[in-house]
Amino acid sequence: MERHFHHDLEILKAELLRMGGLAEAIVQKSVEALRQRDVALAEAVVQDDRAIDRLEVDIEHHCIDLLARQQPMAVDLRFILAALKISNDLERVGDHAVNIAGSALRLGSAPPVKPLIDIPRMADLALGMLKDALDAFVRKDSATAREILTRDDTVDDLNRQIHRELIGYMVENPSIISRALELILVARNLERVADLATNVAEELVFFTEARIVKHHLEESAS
Amino acid sequence: MERHFHHDLEILKAELLRMGGLAEAIVQKSVEALRQRDVALAEAVVQDDRAIDRLEVDIEHHCIDLLARQQPMAVDLRFILAALKISNDLERVGDHAVNIAGSALRLGSAPPVKPLIDIPRMADLALGMLKDALDAFVRKDSATAREILTRDDTVDDLNRQIHRELIGYMVENPSIISRALELILVARNLERVADLATNVAEELVFFTEARIVKHHLEESAS
Repeated sequence: MERHFHHDLEILKAELLRMGGLAEAIVQKSVEALRQRDVALAEAVVQDDRAIDRLEVDIEHHCIDLLARQQPMAVDLRFILAALKISNDLERVGDHAVNIAGSALRLGSAPPVKPLIDIPRMADLALGMLKDALDAFVRKDSATAREILTRDDTVDDLNRQIHRELIGYMVENPSIISRALELILVARNLERVADLATNVAEELVFFTEARIVKHHLEESAS
Repeated sequence: MERHFHHDLEILKAELLRMGGLAEAIVQKSVEALRQRDVALAEAVVQDDRAIDRLEVDIEHHCIDLLARQQPMAVDLRFILAALKISNDLERVGDHAVNIAGSALRLGSAPPVKPLIDIPRMADLALGMLKDALDAFVRKDSATAREILTRDDTVDDLNRQIHRELIGYMVENPSIISRALELILVARNLERVADLATNVAEELVFFTEARIVKHHLEESAS
């Protein structure tokens, strides 16, 4: 029984990592679709997101089943609750990729408002945070998780900078308003991906240290 | 023991309803701050959100404690998992109210771009969904929950309409671009509040019927 349980937890961890890999790939693909003005790639993102939605439901079933059958305590209970939340975070990452792909589709083959440099940079930062949070989760490395939380400010700054810059472009040239607005929305979606990476890091701290660190409150889980 | 457990579940339900009431009030207040151009009211929203964040952490502690001590099965297990998720949804509703208040603060006492009619209407619809979802939760009324899911389309349509209309205003009059953009963002935040109300409704269906209805997939929980 005990051995089966730990085997089940390993499977759950593998499912989460698979979902994490898909979530990273889909964000990358959505930004690539935008950069290359590749409509087919943007459409593929919408398809890929279905696999992520499916995995979230599978992981949820798996967690409920483990809670009901094994009635886990302490660290195992916290691990399963963290897995439930992380799968929800990753599903939301997928939704943001779909939003970005939506912008790519609406922009279609229209000429770029400006060379896309900051948005891919923002995507790299957000995806780096997400990847590192998932790697830290595998290693139960809560020190790295805490370091990831500090990186969110850089992404927020970049978002504000992109926002300001694009408003400047709109004012100068009203004919690009709709297109510039799409890029503002893309930047906001990437900023949210970084927020979700910090959620994953927070869940890791909760699972390994039994401490809830969200909302800048910090306290022991009872 | 059994009687204590059911008493604990009632307390948990009361905490969720209190959090729901605060979340509704804070969204209402943020839209009011925008409508009245009331900076002090917008600042109060940021304060109020702290109480919501605090309640989320309390509810999470409470749920973890119940899972660890009582090792609930079937409907009680599903209720506690639904409570965890709903408290997370309500916390996000609070974040959207803070975003709206942020727009109200940035708009300050600037003259309105247009009379605010559609945005308060959108707020009413989204808050109606949220209130009805929480009421249905209390009554374990999954028929109402399913009806709430169908209302989301109206809010989405209104969001698209507001978006299109404001882009038109921006093109006509570039001097209002920043202000119109704030209103586009407010509408998007309200659209997300409606999405979170549908999440609450989905969690209710899961808890009462043991069926997962999210992502337009529908299947029995194992």
